[in-house]
Amino acid sequence: MKLFLPAQTILLPSPVLIIGTYGSDGRPNIMNASWGGIASSKPPCISVSLREATLTYHNIKQAGAFTVNIPSEKYFKEADFVGMVSGRDCDKFKQTGLTPEKSKLVNAPIVKEFPYSLECNLVRQIDLGPLNAIWSGRLILACIQCSLEKLSEWSLIARF
Amino acid sequence: MKLFLPAQTILLPSPVLIIGTYGSDGRPNIMNASWGGIASSKPPCISVSLREATLTYHNIKQAGAFTVNIPSEKYFKEADFVGMVSGRDCDKFKQTGLTPEKSKLVNAPIVKEFPYSLECNLVRQIDLGPLNAIWSGRLILACIQCSLEKLSEWSLIARF
Repeated sequence: MKLFLPAQTILLPSPVLIIGTYGSDGRPNIMNASWGGIASSKPPCISVSLREATLTYHNIKQAGAFTVNIPSEKYFKEADFVGMVSGRDCDKFKQTGLTPEKSKLVNAPIVKEFPYSLECNLVRQIDLGPLNAIWSGRLILACIQCSLEKLSEWSLIARF
Repeated sequence: MKLFLPAQTILLPSPVLIIGTYGSDGRPNIMNASWGGIASSKPPCISVSLREATLTYHNIKQAGAFTVNIPSEKYFKEADFVGMVSGRDCDKFKQTGLTPEKSKLVNAPIVKEFPYSLECNLVRQIDLGPLNAIWSGRLILACIQCSLEKLSEWSLIARF
């Protein structure tokens, strides 16, 4: 049978994008965002949709940069946690034990323990309504944590 | 070890969004797009990034609407195929044996055999570079194919 429902904001799979930013006081923050992904190839851009209520929304606006960090399965609890609380109320790095690390090229921190990070400079804020904006960032650098044995696999992927 | 690579447009998981549109001649078309997803909650919107080279890009522009159809695993070959060829060169519905069906509320077809379809009216074209544009559509209706036994599960999800 067919079931018709009013508009549902449900679409799977939902990525786990851990967005790294600095606040105006230099404090690193991370949040879990699932509404985002690659948006263009030339220039290479990633877009992430955030509510204005989030600290990350304002951090990106102020710092002009963000990182997208992909956790390994080992860190699923930490990844979930940083999507449940606000960086206004606690230091999410301290609470999770994760380590903020300076990124190579942009003004945003990466998560040291995570295997894949993308460094992005903000290029566009696209307001979609009273609550959400899409933040489009130009991909500057990809940082991959890998063992020497895995290096050949990554090299293949990098050429993909 | 850490490996730094130039910007990579690689981010997993990559959704399989089968975009349904009508051409100016009324011909239904589908393509497989993986750069997209939910973009806002109020209004509920979905965004999908498409190259100008695609027929779907022009169909959305002309028709002002599109659908997002999620295939079940059974149709992975068909889903792959419609991302590999252009609707300019062949009738992808005929080639795959899939059935275009009028959607309930927007000017775009859904794929009858697929279990989940979202009907969207275009609200924004956001040009990101010389090749890509993000098409943001307002979600109007969700259409779910389900058995009576599964209905209670979906009801739960719908309230999620």
